[in-house]
Amino acid sequence: MAVVEIYDTTLRDGSQGEGVSFSAEDKVKIALKLDKMGFHYVEGGWPGSNPKDMAFFQRIKNHRLSHARIAAFGSTRKPGVPVQEDGNIQSILAAGVSVATIFGKSWDLHVTRALGTTLEENLAMIEESVGYLKSRGLTVIYDAEHFFDGFKANAQYALATLRAAVRGGADRLVLCDTNGGSLPEEIAAIVERVKEEIPVVLGIHCHNDGELAVANTLAAVRAGVTHVQGTINGYGERCGNANLCSVIPNLTLKYGHETIPRSSLAQLTDLSRYVSELANLHPNTHQPFVGASAFAHKGGVHVNAILKDPRTYEHIDPALVGNRRRVLVSELSGLSNLFYKLKELNFNLDASKEETRRFLEEIKELEHQGYMFEGAEGSFELLLRRAYDNYREPFKLESLRVIIELKENSPVYSEAIIKLTVGDQVVHTAAEGNGPVNALDNALRKALEVFYPDIRRMQLTDYKVRVLDEKDGTGAVVRVLIETGDGERSWGTVGVSTNIIEASWQALVDSIAYGLLKNNGR
Amino acid sequence: MAVVEIYDTTLRDGSQGEGVSFSAEDKVKIALKLDKMGFHYVEGGWPGSNPKDMAFFQRIKNHRLSHARIAAFGSTRKPGVPVQEDGNIQSILAAGVSVATIFGKSWDLHVTRALGTTLEENLAMIEESVGYLKSRGLTVIYDAEHFFDGFKANAQYALATLRAAVRGGADRLVLCDTNGGSLPEEIAAIVERVKEEIPVVLGIHCHNDGELAVANTLAAVRAGVTHVQGTINGYGERCGNANLCSVIPNLTLKYGHETIPRSSLAQLTDLSRYVSELANLHPNTHQPFVGASAFAHKGGVHVNAILKDPRTYEHIDPALVGNRRRVLVSELSGLSNLFYKLKELNFNLDASKEETRRFLEEIKELEHQGYMFEGAEGSFELLLRRAYDNYREPFKLESLRVIIELKENSPVYSEAIIKLTVGDQVVHTAAEGNGPVNALDNALRKALEVFYPDIRRMQLTDYKVRVLDEKDGTGAVVRVLIETGDGERSWGTVGVSTNIIEASWQALVDSIAYGLLKNNGR
Repeated sequence: MAVVEIYDTTLRDGSQGEGVSFSAEDKVKIALKLDKMGFHYVEGGWPGSNPKDMAFFQRIKNHRLSHARIAAFGSTRKPGVPVQEDGNIQSILAAGVSVATIFGKSWDLHVTRALGTTLEENLAMIEESVGYLKSRGLTVIYDAEHFFDGFKANAQYALATLRAAVRGGADRLVLCDTNGGSLPEEIAAIVERVKEEIPVVLGIHCHNDGELAVANTLAAVRAGVTHVQGTINGYGERCGNANLCSVIPNLTLKYGHETIPRSSLAQLTDLSRYVSELANLHPNTHQPFVGASAFAHKGGVHVNAILKDPRTYEHIDPALVGNRRRVLVSELSGLSNLFYKLKELNFNLDASKEETRRFLEEIKELEHQGYMFEGAEGSFELLLRRAYDNYREPFKLESLRVIIELKENSPVYSEAIIKLTVGDQVVHTAAEGNGPVNALDNALRKALEVFYPDIRRMQLTDYKVRVLDEKDGTGAVVRVLIETGDGERSWGTVGVSTNIIEASWQALVDSIAYGLLKNNGR
Repeated sequence: MAVVEIYDTTLRDGSQGEGVSFSAEDKVKIALKLDKMGFHYVEGGWPGSNPKDMAFFQRIKNHRLSHARIAAFGSTRKPGVPVQEDGNIQSILAAGVSVATIFGKSWDLHVTRALGTTLEENLAMIEESVGYLKSRGLTVIYDAEHFFDGFKANAQYALATLRAAVRGGADRLVLCDTNGGSLPEEIAAIVERVKEEIPVVLGIHCHNDGELAVANTLAAVRAGVTHVQGTINGYGERCGNANLCSVIPNLTLKYGHETIPRSSLAQLTDLSRYVSELANLHPNTHQPFVGASAFAHKGGVHVNAILKDPRTYEHIDPALVGNRRRVLVSELSGLSNLFYKLKELNFNLDASKEETRRFLEEIKELEHQGYMFEGAEGSFELLLRRAYDNYREPFKLESLRVIIELKENSPVYSEAIIKLTVGDQVVHTAAEGNGPVNALDNALRKALEVFYPDIRRMQLTDYKVRVLDEKDGTGAVVRVLIETGDGERSWGTVGVSTNIIEASWQALVDSIAYGLLKNNGR
């Protein structure tokens, strides 16, 4: 119904999240991706605050963008400093971009307590900073920091700060819920008040401290805001920023607003994973819209209904955001889950046949022992192929020995010795590692690399250990889940034993066998 | 202003989340914790669906609860089956609880497509199922599945299903946004309509598919709902359920409603981590209110302002939810925590002394390596006594060797060989086990029993492994937490290493040393 501008601040506010760290090159890659997908603005960083951000602005100039405008972030000038002599404002100019986003104080408490200046001087700082950047030909977006808390404390003063930005010539006024504690109805009421008083395009910038950033952003748009700031995956300081991976599909699919093109919407899941990959963070599998579990069905009742009509347990078609439906096999699920899964793998089993029944019994028995196939598609498919497909293992274990030694005053030593047959050849080799499983992993790769060079591309990306029936203490059953990737795809495998080394070995063997199967590397 | 009942479904809906799996014993522990904190209802599981849930209902009967009522979950009777012959309904009775929560269909699409029955039969199923359970003396909570989608599709029919439940005598009608795709203003408008028509206490049950579960829950309460369902940490199928760790503080601190007692609110952070620990899921550090980063402030402007006035960058006082401020540059709050802990153990350290400073540095360094002393009081106290108390270790390790062997067609073999000195005697012995850590445990007990007969009373009751930095695959750092009991008390100990055997050894040694210390057994 309306056009809502999308302003991404992943590279600036997002990178202030604990554990998030992008190189200048990562930032360029992300900016190019956002541009290609039709984001309206990409905030690249705060050029006055660190050299990495300045490097980004230098590099991005070598690229021709087709949609996005790159924005540089900074604050209003310092109290008592002429604007043309303010280092921070000069850095924005030095960034060489056409859009400047500057933040100023809206809350009287902040002006007097944090900045330690007068309410009048703050108004002058805002007007002069915006005006100066406008006079240098830039589009200026004014971020009104703490606007909602400021409005609640002193509405007249908060409005006066916006008027100062308007006098300076600001192109957008962005109302920020910096502390992230406002409620949707407060946001809506305050946006409506501001809209009555101020004749400039309004924007919204929410933080997630009350787990309400997405709702607050949507409430602001309903109240008349047409510029939305946020980050991919909601990365950002403390509890993060409004998550654009949820804001965009809600605005587009639920409210019918125009944001990024529909074709780009279908790349949202890819974008989310790409950014988490570059941020070196585990993707949140339960993330709405784009998470790997967002359309995963586990309960038997659900799966049964989904097969009849997807609308029964899906609020949107996952393909609209580039995601897909997944059916999980687990103790909570019935036969329908299993049959769905088999169909996905092009196995059309006849439920009435004796061998099918045996296979189902085997799965159930394995789950009873502690195997879990929902994160281990690799092991599940191998199980199936071993049962039905005349599958030939890429190698066979003859023997394995792991030795761990610890002596007073010397580092712990781990060694694995393995003997395998590959075809008609026997391989007997050994390796060290910084732990027993690492030693095994190293020995196995060493033994197989000659026969299957593809193994070099396979990397273990995740290793999880779950002690089942923890009450049995050190004698308990252990489940190991391994995630492996080859740069293109990734797959999970599982092993279960009272012996952690054996459980790890099972998962390791499957991880390599499955990788080779998919690469036709055997 | 109003009393809002809190209904926790972590143990049922939460356990349908991908990767979540609780043992029956885990479930009992969580239920007891929720009870102690004053939650009104704890849904324990679906007794008709799997044996594990039934085991929970058996075990929880051995405990006397002080606040919470335990609810068993199930569906309305099957189409065409007399209610007293319906297996699912009978399982609810067999669970032996005083509260039954049954779900029925509100959406005509579901009745005809998923259930494959008539709209009339569905109404009969609801009324008879509720009525039958009421006639057996149970409190009945009726979960109106897909209520909002159903209402949007066919409001008259959706209301008719609620009226059927009212005729059956339902004590609560819970409106469910099962697919999680509704918007806050839709929820509010529909709740208001229902309130006009139906004279029974209303509840809300939201899923998070639009990242709006918390906002939708709050919107429903504003519209008049006084019963709220959700899960700890928002665990649940697909994108999860409404996160009670955010819903409760929002309702209590922002809206002033009465939920759980204020003193329990201050345990919310602990509760969140306890449940993630038992679920063996990484805590979400950015989680609102209870996450480790929720009140973490990076350097510069924010820290400066926070020190002048915390309101400048905090929406609530973190202590209200049992969380704490972290000023990432100074670690000031870490010290006060530590001093608090030391005072508990009657160690009054002088902060100005050089040895105190060294001890604090050591703790910091260990925490940096991955040690966690929150669940490991035993290791923490030993650390302290080793530094200050002229503590004498009950034994000293000379050497340790663990060997694991696996041969084609024979069971895996684990053996541990250890050499210790106890006083002036050398003990050199060996033992087998069903895994390497179990073998070590056996060997250690065998070596020490002669000297310290008390060891026979000590039992390992819990053994947890957590892989830190999972992205490093099999080379990652591992943290082992062990819980040991002697029938009177229990204590936790910790070990950290890239080598799981070494980490387990550290925790094992501490577990025995601490037990002997407390028994004065040396």
